[in-house]
Amino acid sequence: MRAALYNGPHAIEVGDRPDPVITAPTDAIVSVVLSCVCGSDLWYYRGESPHDLGPIGHEFIGVVEEVGREVGGIAKGDFVIAPFIYCDGTCAHCRAGVTSQCVAGAAFGNHGIDGGQGEAVRVPLGSTLVRVPGDGHSDETMRSLLALSDVMCTGHHAAVSAGVNSGDVVAVVGDGAVGLCGVIAAGRLGAARIIALSRNPARQELARSFGATDILGERGDAAIEAVRELTNGVGVDAALECVGTGQSVATALAITRPGSMVGIVGVPHGVDASIADTIVFRNVGLRGGVAPARAYIPELLADVLEGRIHPGRVFDFETDLDGVAEAYAAMDQRRAIKSLLRIGEVARR
Amino acid sequence: MRAALYNGPHAIEVGDRPDPVITAPTDAIVSVVLSCVCGSDLWYYRGESPHDLGPIGHEFIGVVEEVGREVGGIAKGDFVIAPFIYCDGTCAHCRAGVTSQCVAGAAFGNHGIDGGQGEAVRVPLGSTLVRVPGDGHSDETMRSLLALSDVMCTGHHAAVSAGVNSGDVVAVVGDGAVGLCGVIAAGRLGAARIIALSRNPARQELARSFGATDILGERGDAAIEAVRELTNGVGVDAALECVGTGQSVATALAITRPGSMVGIVGVPHGVDASIADTIVFRNVGLRGGVAPARAYIPELLADVLEGRIHPGRVFDFETDLDGVAEAYAAMDQRRAIKSLLRIGEVARR
Repeated sequence: MRAALYNGPHAIEVGDRPDPVITAPTDAIVSVVLSCVCGSDLWYYRGESPHDLGPIGHEFIGVVEEVGREVGGIAKGDFVIAPFIYCDGTCAHCRAGVTSQCVAGAAFGNHGIDGGQGEAVRVPLGSTLVRVPGDGHSDETMRSLLALSDVMCTGHHAAVSAGVNSGDVVAVVGDGAVGLCGVIAAGRLGAARIIALSRNPARQELARSFGATDILGERGDAAIEAVRELTNGVGVDAALECVGTGQSVATALAITRPGSMVGIVGVPHGVDASIADTIVFRNVGLRGGVAPARAYIPELLADVLEGRIHPGRVFDFETDLDGVAEAYAAMDQRRAIKSLLRIGEVARR
Repeated sequence: MRAALYNGPHAIEVGDRPDPVITAPTDAIVSVVLSCVCGSDLWYYRGESPHDLGPIGHEFIGVVEEVGREVGGIAKGDFVIAPFIYCDGTCAHCRAGVTSQCVAGAAFGNHGIDGGQGEAVRVPLGSTLVRVPGDGHSDETMRSLLALSDVMCTGHHAAVSAGVNSGDVVAVVGDGAVGLCGVIAAGRLGAARIIALSRNPARQELARSFGATDILGERGDAAIEAVRELTNGVGVDAALECVGTGQSVATALAITRPGSMVGIVGVPHGVDASIADTIVFRNVGLRGGVAPARAYIPELLADVLEGRIHPGRVFDFETDLDGVAEAYAAMDQRRAIKSLLRIGEVARR
């Protein structure tokens, strides 16, 4: 078969590869109908990240040619979508819905796995393929089915991660294919207002056709200021970060109102590395901050008064106001968890 | 009145301050009954962060002595809890429940605001005070009411931010007063298993009495390994980060299963600064990563097939397999949003 091959930076060529065959009972063979190039394919294309020489591409739709005897859910002749990372569907992460972290999974098109940018693919865990019902789909539908292989799911993941809810004001940082699909995703989840950050006229137009209600051409501090103005100084209810640079992450964090989330799917480039990498590559979120005590006290007060919780037990040192210096010293020297100061009386009521 | 005063690092003394008086119709005057020292008070005590010379302390409970004419909800003689950051209760952030980001709020005990570690306090927005019903509370209850001023709310915020749900396996990183209250909070929200990271025997015992089911004395990589072993390699459903060092944040991120959250309330010290500071001080979360396409495709497929979404419109360049190099070049040179490859046919079904 013929397939696109990576021969080094800026050297993509079409060459011959062995026709894929079933090598394990969980394999499936798919002949590719449509494939495409991902923004992340450009990293190795530009020589910015390592990649094995050989097959490339992780997005494709096609027709099932053959299935191993342990493959369920699909059969020869089915028209299918391949998720860009195949998965077993049975591990703890798959069962939790985080199939991209499957313990047996990997992306297509690297490390000896066939790429989607070729005539056929051996899919190592064939039951990962999703059958498309119906036939005779229009070319527009076919293109959208291909988009489900990665880019639309990635935009959706930004929106899901940001917790987009019905009625929300949402900002989308990034007007690449993922950001544009993020606009679709935000609308689909009920966003009332979608602010797209883009300064490319063609992409602005596509963003509008996907449901963006406001377009901002600013970047950096000017973008932050513009979003704040649009939201009466409050910020958006959710932000979708679909770029991955230090500036875009900073912008997304700055324009989101306190108590809300940034959904980050742009792969970090030049962002505080250890935190951002973990968030993106382990799909683990990070949220918190200064506690809104005034909002929490009424709820927790009932628990204290009814004896259900006893947080006061953290006070293991006590003194009066005259002993305050010792109260600090006891904690500083780790002699105390927390120092209590007895200052007055309640009795006067 | 007498109050604790900050005279510089390691110099806490009790001195005289003017008796507080009503200066605005929104003020209230509270005579302090119990106060305490916060872990964060130790930063200026140790000279690690700046602080005005003068009154200190932001946690207190007491009795209302006088209220301005615009103060609602409380009256002279009420026994009240002061949230460590006072707030107006009416701004967009307060209405969203994030009272700690109130546009009119501030912490007690700095920048000219009376501190809780003194005999009386002028509370600039008196309606922030929470009235405690009943009277004759036991000393244990009084201590727990004081804990609601900050430390219990902060532990609760870690648990809320981490999205602790009924039945969850939760890890608490940090055995200070906040971490210990985080154990209470996790149990209160229904955690089935609470893993507390602590190597101090007295704190381990308190953690157990608060509901911790497992205690781990390890730190760093050994702690990560130990939590993974306890969770069959999967990780916990939610982690509470109650320390704020680079190591503790890294540990919390590493032990949490993909798809889940770390609730961070430890104020960042030596953590990748720009991201962590924004998360904590703006209360904005960050979540996302590699999209679980296999989990999302079925849901999105229905939308494509029924014509509700058209993500395929992001493909604005197309070619066949022989044109694959040009497909990359078009995206690399930003001539294309996303390049489509037509490789085969579906028709053979």
